[in-house]
Amino acid sequence: MNKKVLKIVPLGGLGEVGKNMMVLEYGRNILIVDSGLMFPENNMPGIDHIIPDFSYLNDKFDRVRGIVITHGHEDHTGAIRHVAEQIDAPIYATPLTCGLLESKLRKAKLYDSDKLVQVNAGDSVDIGPFKVEFFHVCHSIPDAVGLGITTPLGLVVHSGDFKLDQTPTDDWPTDFAKIGEFAGRGVLALLSDSTNADQPGWTPSEAIIDGAFDEAFRAADGRVLVATFASLISRVQQVINASYRHGRRVVLVGTSMVVNSKMAIKLGYLQDPNNVLVSLDQALSLPKSKVTLMMTGSQGEPSSILGRLAVGRNRRFDLEDGDTVIVSAHPIPGNEEVVSRTINRLIQRGAKVIYDPLLPVHVSGHANSEEQKQLIRMVKPKFFVPIHGELRMLHAHASLAQQVGVPSNNVAVVENGTILELTSESLTIGDRIPGGYVYIDGTGVGDIGPQVLRERDRLSRDGFVIVNMMIDVETRELLNIPEITSRGFVYVRDSEQLFLQAREKVVSIVKDNPDNKIVSKVEKSLSDFFYKEIRRRPIICVLVNEV
Amino acid sequence: MNKKVLKIVPLGGLGEVGKNMMVLEYGRNILIVDSGLMFPENNMPGIDHIIPDFSYLNDKFDRVRGIVITHGHEDHTGAIRHVAEQIDAPIYATPLTCGLLESKLRKAKLYDSDKLVQVNAGDSVDIGPFKVEFFHVCHSIPDAVGLGITTPLGLVVHSGDFKLDQTPTDDWPTDFAKIGEFAGRGVLALLSDSTNADQPGWTPSEAIIDGAFDEAFRAADGRVLVATFASLISRVQQVINASYRHGRRVVLVGTSMVVNSKMAIKLGYLQDPNNVLVSLDQALSLPKSKVTLMMTGSQGEPSSILGRLAVGRNRRFDLEDGDTVIVSAHPIPGNEEVVSRTINRLIQRGAKVIYDPLLPVHVSGHANSEEQKQLIRMVKPKFFVPIHGELRMLHAHASLAQQVGVPSNNVAVVENGTILELTSESLTIGDRIPGGYVYIDGTGVGDIGPQVLRERDRLSRDGFVIVNMMIDVETRELLNIPEITSRGFVYVRDSEQLFLQAREKVVSIVKDNPDNKIVSKVEKSLSDFFYKEIRRRPIICVLVNEV
Repeated sequence: MNKKVLKIVPLGGLGEVGKNMMVLEYGRNILIVDSGLMFPENNMPGIDHIIPDFSYLNDKFDRVRGIVITHGHEDHTGAIRHVAEQIDAPIYATPLTCGLLESKLRKAKLYDSDKLVQVNAGDSVDIGPFKVEFFHVCHSIPDAVGLGITTPLGLVVHSGDFKLDQTPTDDWPTDFAKIGEFAGRGVLALLSDSTNADQPGWTPSEAIIDGAFDEAFRAADGRVLVATFASLISRVQQVINASYRHGRRVVLVGTSMVVNSKMAIKLGYLQDPNNVLVSLDQALSLPKSKVTLMMTGSQGEPSSILGRLAVGRNRRFDLEDGDTVIVSAHPIPGNEEVVSRTINRLIQRGAKVIYDPLLPVHVSGHANSEEQKQLIRMVKPKFFVPIHGELRMLHAHASLAQQVGVPSNNVAVVENGTILELTSESLTIGDRIPGGYVYIDGTGVGDIGPQVLRERDRLSRDGFVIVNMMIDVETRELLNIPEITSRGFVYVRDSEQLFLQAREKVVSIVKDNPDNKIVSKVEKSLSDFFYKEIRRRPIICVLVNEV
Repeated sequence: MNKKVLKIVPLGGLGEVGKNMMVLEYGRNILIVDSGLMFPENNMPGIDHIIPDFSYLNDKFDRVRGIVITHGHEDHTGAIRHVAEQIDAPIYATPLTCGLLESKLRKAKLYDSDKLVQVNAGDSVDIGPFKVEFFHVCHSIPDAVGLGITTPLGLVVHSGDFKLDQTPTDDWPTDFAKIGEFAGRGVLALLSDSTNADQPGWTPSEAIIDGAFDEAFRAADGRVLVATFASLISRVQQVINASYRHGRRVVLVGTSMVVNSKMAIKLGYLQDPNNVLVSLDQALSLPKSKVTLMMTGSQGEPSSILGRLAVGRNRRFDLEDGDTVIVSAHPIPGNEEVVSRTINRLIQRGAKVIYDPLLPVHVSGHANSEEQKQLIRMVKPKFFVPIHGELRMLHAHASLAQQVGVPSNNVAVVENGTILELTSESLTIGDRIPGGYVYIDGTGVGDIGPQVLRERDRLSRDGFVIVNMMIDVETRELLNIPEITSRGFVYVRDSEQLFLQAREKVVSIVKDNPDNKIVSKVEKSLSDFFYKEIRRRPIICVLVNEV
């Protein structure tokens, strides 16, 4: 093995490249960046979430010198228990991220205070042959960092998820000085967040939300309900501030919202200097014009508070006339339909609903294309690798890099599971390794594969039909009238004739085929029959009981 | 019945209100506007499409004096065969719309040349007590119209689907003069398209696409592939024009693209003055830099040409290195994920893909909020009814109407299935009638209800399990080892232990329960067992064969 090569390996299937997990490997030393999960797409029914397939590391667990987590979002932290179960290495993260990781590891009975190492933006840590400098970046959760990783071959900068907000809610901008210092030292490669690479201009600052909140709060006569992500602590801060300006008290509802906010208050990332926060009981006893309810459910999740309010199934309180609901989030790709439906239902149940673009009550946490170009100009890397995006974003980002002077030969776009080989002079695309998904369904880790998903897909379209019969083992004659049942196929009460004809087919097949190929013949015949009659192809199970 | 009331009844479930079908009823006279279908949402597996439930008309078919179709899109025409099957009334539409309707009716063997009446924008037709004046509106299909309907109570203006493009491709703007004339006469009520009511400003003109095409064509070395809707004839025109400017010939591929374009050429809505159009064979023999392929598949439909190219399964030609694909459409809500996946796959297979917002290669066919306000200002209606949108768009549109001077008491927002009662002095909300969906699955019309959809949903999440056993009818003892099979549940080969334990449970239940409640007991016990073990709840079918 050539020791003078740094391997960069993004893991996690055809999704956002390197977002959930990234491996840096130099000789017998491995550094892992992030351990997140993905949410299933609409064509993966029943799957709860997805974690990266890190079987590439199976025979090298002892070479992992450390795991660095850039920020506290699920897509960067959510697989930590699966990783920590197998890999016994220290985990480095900033205070808020550590807090979130700790509760995940405790739940999985894997928490070890010696192994979870708290660092601060600005710190520098030696991890095997890598010196990792953590630098602050703005993002839609506090305490997010990018990484300056000094390797034996040169300095590699990893942006984390970032934007270049000049007026963030916590007044803590991205650390431009540190980035400038990196550029002064000379950066071998920049790995940078591509999420919004196809979006023009600059992502608006969090600050514009304050004005939108003021407009919405001013117009509200009754209660204000704000839904956002439980991790979006800065938004909770903005709601506390806006409520104070408009004479309202705030109650946080929903477990994850309460738990995250408590942790953020304890660690100093969320401030309530005017004691605006109240309990739910207090809130419900106040005049409607004096209350803001802050909750989860911005993605229309049926089990969230907002999701339950939309269908009238929340226990402690319900929607009331005059309520104004602010959906302070954008739908995550794939959730557009369910978010629309939730908003329509809230309106149907009497609420006034405000969402972007009606008012700018949310902005993205990721850099748009002008910011991405700005970062590349600031870092001045020799090589550029777009990460954290679907293939189309990576290509858009690669094209931006060329616009700001990175030669096209020095840019590499790869998918998860492709090894990049970096030397001080070259960036080349190496082997492909298993870099797919592992599906998590219930408590099953990886027991669902493509075949089961294909069956579920077919079941979801046309349901199934069971044919159950008894035949005489000697004479091969039917001993009963074949019983046909179905689920998810047709409305049974209206389909007597269809089932009657199907049964006749079965009877005649058994009569004509005294051999033992009955099962496949009945399957095929009924499949063709149902398709011809009603253009559906249910899964057909034929059970032959020999007596 | 009060003869002095005009009932306005939007039909079609909780979707876009009045988009697919709208009933105007005055005494014993009914006018139907549009007869379209909806595409199923992601939570309606296996459903091909949805038509409005028009059972409200069941006992009044003979009162229908006419059916007016505003333009040729599927969501306004796609249910015509189901309507024409039951209602024997003349159908009025402009030439292109008539052409599209004719082929639908011919397919269903329902075409009657006397009943399909061609009208032109500017024409006026008496339909029962209604005088209907058709006026041209810009939209993303040629020959779209709005309606001025003179009723015994006053003039009702229906916008159709519209935008106020000042520079449409065919240089045929919305008929502002006619709208002005309506306003001069005095308009009792305006029913207006709400699709983009939450979008700020004006929808960009079709004209900006020419510049985007020029930029994309200029950068393309190899072939250019453009995907759009088969009905978007003006886009085909723009591609023909751009190709001519850049020295390329154009081939149309895909049945619907070819059929629609042929009809549009025949009727004069599509021009090829420079003979740019060639056959596929000719196109494939030309140098790559001289060819544009124009196709369907902008929504990632797996059976479309672009959908097949994305997975390498198109028969006549494949993607080639250097191909530039222009996706000249926006994803229809709900299709975002599949469109993303298609674009990623095209890139993976070597194409350069251009889509909005990388370049403005598509614009909406609907008015944004400033245009909507403009129309209301021009029409100056006494009453306003937002239509053609989800509830949230209707509310946004209602708020725009108030901004431009319609008193809030004169605006009515209703859902499909709610009767609006209009008199010359009042607009009130009346009864609710059945106004839901009818699901079309295969050849089945309405045989799928919520129960079947619930079963399909559950099957798609956790699959099913069959338990099959024989018991002695006398002794109630098991005669075989219960056979357990599953589909869509777990990967069977890795789950031997699970099935073994399940079988033991079944055996012990049968032993302990010599009565005939075995079925429900086994169902419940296995359901709890599987949930406890792996957190899944498959549908369980227990078959007891008594011998």
